[in-house]
Amino acid sequence: MNGKKSVQEAFNETAYRIAGNGNRDVQVLKEALAAVENSTASDIYGTGEVIEDFQTKMANILGKETAVFFPSGTMAQQIALRIWCDEKEVKKVAYHPLCHLEIHEQDGMKELHHIEPVLLADKDRLITLEDVANLKEEIACLLLELPQREIGGQLPEYTELEVISAHCRARGIKLHLDGARLFEILPYYGKSAAEISALFDSVYISFYKGIGGIAGAILAGSEDFTKQSKIWKRRHGGDLISLYPYIISSDYYFRQREGRMQQYYEGAKELAAWVNQCHDVTTLPAQPVSNMFHMHFQMSKEQIEPILSAVYEATGIGLSAGIRATGEHTSYCEISIGDKYADIPKEKLKEFFLLLDKLMNESSAE
Amino acid sequence: MNGKKSVQEAFNETAYRIAGNGNRDVQVLKEALAAVENSTASDIYGTGEVIEDFQTKMANILGKETAVFFPSGTMAQQIALRIWCDEKEVKKVAYHPLCHLEIHEQDGMKELHHIEPVLLADKDRLITLEDVANLKEEIACLLLELPQREIGGQLPEYTELEVISAHCRARGIKLHLDGARLFEILPYYGKSAAEISALFDSVYISFYKGIGGIAGAILAGSEDFTKQSKIWKRRHGGDLISLYPYIISSDYYFRQREGRMQQYYEGAKELAAWVNQCHDVTTLPAQPVSNMFHMHFQMSKEQIEPILSAVYEATGIGLSAGIRATGEHTSYCEISIGDKYADIPKEKLKEFFLLLDKLMNESSAE
Repeated sequence: MNGKKSVQEAFNETAYRIAGNGNRDVQVLKEALAAVENSTASDIYGTGEVIEDFQTKMANILGKETAVFFPSGTMAQQIALRIWCDEKEVKKVAYHPLCHLEIHEQDGMKELHHIEPVLLADKDRLITLEDVANLKEEIACLLLELPQREIGGQLPEYTELEVISAHCRARGIKLHLDGARLFEILPYYGKSAAEISALFDSVYISFYKGIGGIAGAILAGSEDFTKQSKIWKRRHGGDLISLYPYIISSDYYFRQREGRMQQYYEGAKELAAWVNQCHDVTTLPAQPVSNMFHMHFQMSKEQIEPILSAVYEATGIGLSAGIRATGEHTSYCEISIGDKYADIPKEKLKEFFLLLDKLMNESSAE
Repeated sequence: MNGKKSVQEAFNETAYRIAGNGNRDVQVLKEALAAVENSTASDIYGTGEVIEDFQTKMANILGKETAVFFPSGTMAQQIALRIWCDEKEVKKVAYHPLCHLEIHEQDGMKELHHIEPVLLADKDRLITLEDVANLKEEIACLLLELPQREIGGQLPEYTELEVISAHCRARGIKLHLDGARLFEILPYYGKSAAEISALFDSVYISFYKGIGGIAGAILAGSEDFTKQSKIWKRRHGGDLISLYPYIISSDYYFRQREGRMQQYYEGAKELAAWVNQCHDVTTLPAQPVSNMFHMHFQMSKEQIEPILSAVYEATGIGLSAGIRATGEHTSYCEISIGDKYADIPKEKLKEFFLLLDKLMNESSAE
């Protein structure tokens, strides 16, 4: 272990990648565009075949009346919650403490929509029916994120989802699905996207997580809900004259990867088993329920990074360059399996983890 | 004149187009992408060379400290006004009654930012120093749109701009430029973009008007202003993981068309002279001051559309398919000159206007 290269540098030079679908570069867009005619007309402010056809297609897949394409999930989800709050005239919603709206959006929901969140459950566990049933305050909407990304992509049992949905319906609480990674969880639940969506009043899905598109989101629900969401989309500045670069690539990679989610899920389980055989590192969840999990190191970021660097250099395999400290002596990284995992010969993977385990052991013993 | 085809159908079949830069189709994006390497890395949430370099370039061209790329002008401008209102703790701005924020954004500024507009001037004329000086209410910011699109793209004299700017500076009123068509007015003023921008505290420019890009906007100002605008961009849902499809195309078409604005301006003046020789139609302004003007017909939409249809069919030249009624017996359309105008042989243009004039005369005489 020479430690001369940063983990990012060593990662960049690897020939194999454990996670993801490849580099986010211009070729990703070029490939998607090559599949459509040059004369294909742009969408124009939310109208035109290219956007309308895709919206209809996704509404059908999600089993909802209608759907709207948005440039981002941040915009789509704030708007969904706003519509439900306005309908009930209650400016309160409930969600997990590590919800995207709470920690990644600069408080857009509060600053732009003046909606107050009620945080359900502890940071490190999933929302349960009990949390929802114990709610003292009146809320317009409950947002559930499936899988719960910030805790490694955990999922409640499907029966728990069903009872939460029934509880909300009985009490006039709208249920919104943060389904940024909805297709990634279908193999575990053994359900269709429409079956899961049927438990929710509104559904958001993303096209640049497991699907591997450029950017973009779909928000689906009833016709009245969709109609209102289009007005808010314009207010937010999301009703662009042309969204086709995102729509065409979303459609292209959705068609390409929708059918590979079982493969990614199996890959994640296999990989997590490798990881859990090493010392000083465990996966969360212990057995993945989607294509993703977190790797938690019993080592500081400063201690694990040169080890990873050395393993990347020695094996030509890259795992992650994004190590984050969680405490003085602990750190973690996020792994999402995509196309790239299948490219790595199993022998090489074995070599990777043997070396990782060896170097971590040596480092712990120092 | 058989009148069998709608004006849109007849327009679609024309070989020549008087206005614009050509069809808004996927080829426009493919051409821009062909000019960059496949391995060019995506921007990632506002960082990376592709976005940072373009922001620096545009900040320099506009003579401002910094600039931020936005997916839309709607988003950029609401945010600019919000920052100025917050700074002064006055939730009021002034703008023209036909300002984009007032008539095209579903009241986003009011609904999301709770900013109240003060409408200056009458609908059919430009804002003057007198209007600004007579303001009774305290405002945080004055927005000026150059050219004033909804009245044919009119412009104040440059000296008027200078005195309005000086007046605002002296009174602590921020001046924001809606410069969606800023490059289109440089030939008339004989000024650089930086010289005009120097009169303003914040400047927005668009890349899909005269520049002919796909979508996208730049908001420029001081470093502190820009820093705040990035926070609001995330709140609005505009901080996409990848904006490069818009950035690369904006840069490509900016480089291509920035130097052609004088040509478009001369084309607009020449064309307006042709129009004004016809009966029952005049241009607004009488002599264009940019690449754009409006054509006002002394005829109803229902009367002029079949005439235009017939002229398009007979000459193979398309003028506009977007005729809008302004009254029972009057209508108008907007014309913006781009690359396409230069393709039309002058003899064919003459033929077009002789026939248009003849058919309008016959129709009026009926």
